[in-house]
Amino acid sequence: MKIRPATERDRDAIWNIFREVVAAGDTYALNPNISREDALAYWFAPGAHTYVAELAAKNYHGSSLQRTSSIEGTYILRPNQSGGGLHVANAGFMVSASARGQGIGRAMAEHCLHEARRLGFRAMQFNYVISTNTAAIRLWQDLGFEIVGTLPSAFCHPDKGYVDVYVMYRSLVS
Amino acid sequence: MKIRPATERDRDAIWNIFREVVAAGDTYALNPNISREDALAYWFAPGAHTYVAELAAKNYHGSSLQRTSSIEGTYILRPNQSGGGLHVANAGFMVSASARGQGIGRAMAEHCLHEARRLGFRAMQFNYVISTNTAAIRLWQDLGFEIVGTLPSAFCHPDKGYVDVYVMYRSLVS
Repeated sequence: MKIRPATERDRDAIWNIFREVVAAGDTYALNPNISREDALAYWFAPGAHTYVAELAAKNYHGSSLQRTSSIEGTYILRPNQSGGGLHVANAGFMVSASARGQGIGRAMAEHCLHEARRLGFRAMQFNYVISTNTAAIRLWQDLGFEIVGTLPSAFCHPDKGYVDVYVMYRSLVS
Repeated sequence: MKIRPATERDRDAIWNIFREVVAAGDTYALNPNISREDALAYWFAPGAHTYVAELAAKNYHGSSLQRTSSIEGTYILRPNQSGGGLHVANAGFMVSASARGQGIGRAMAEHCLHEARRLGFRAMQFNYVISTNTAAIRLWQDLGFEIVGTLPSAFCHPDKGYVDVYVMYRSLVS
């Protein structure tokens, strides 16, 4: 797996992942019917650093083997606020449904923490971790994030109705 | 005091208040040198409801009395998130320095809670209440908001250095 900054040529692959994640409507508070243009404007907003996780793949065309790659994950890293809040990073992660359970989220998160330190951020904050997204919560806790706030019934889950949302935070300085 | 939806003609007055509040750099995590264009784009963003507090004033020109008015406060009300988070409102308040201590903030906050209910919001969240902004915190607590999260050292205060930030929340349904 290679995690690298996204380029213009990754936009189709990112949109495919984004559309799938947002359409499910259970992990992001975004319009499930967001347009491609709005989605990419959000993911490539000014000030955001956008990355992709590229997986090697082998494709057989008849008996000939082609080594190709596919984008199966993407994340953004950006300041969570401006002015006096510029030192705290925010990040968002998306993995294609077909590639889950392979550690892509964890690899991107570790890459992201490294990048955040490299860019000089002093802390990282997730503003909106939906309490039913237990895989994400476990991962963030494993990576040193703590739940520092609970927003009661702040998310309307497509199956479960109103559920709590967590704010998660970790320092990046010792 | 009259609190009413802002119009295009209020833009100069809003910018004067906005510039003053943001330049102080101690209550909002915004660029203290934000441009007029960016400030008004933020305050009149699509989906935001923008209001002003207009105060009656008496001006004497020689012996003739003129009844005029001036904009001394402004607030915005908007969904805090999209998709499954659309039912939670967010709001931001600004009062001109010269008009503080007259209850303009409280009057706008009460107006805002009424408007939020009228628009069908089920809760209101403040994402970023700087812990040194004790007047605001007292007011929000008095109006039923609770501190539901603490972001450690998330704001770099111009005088006090890194200080905590609170997330505050209140339900709008019984």
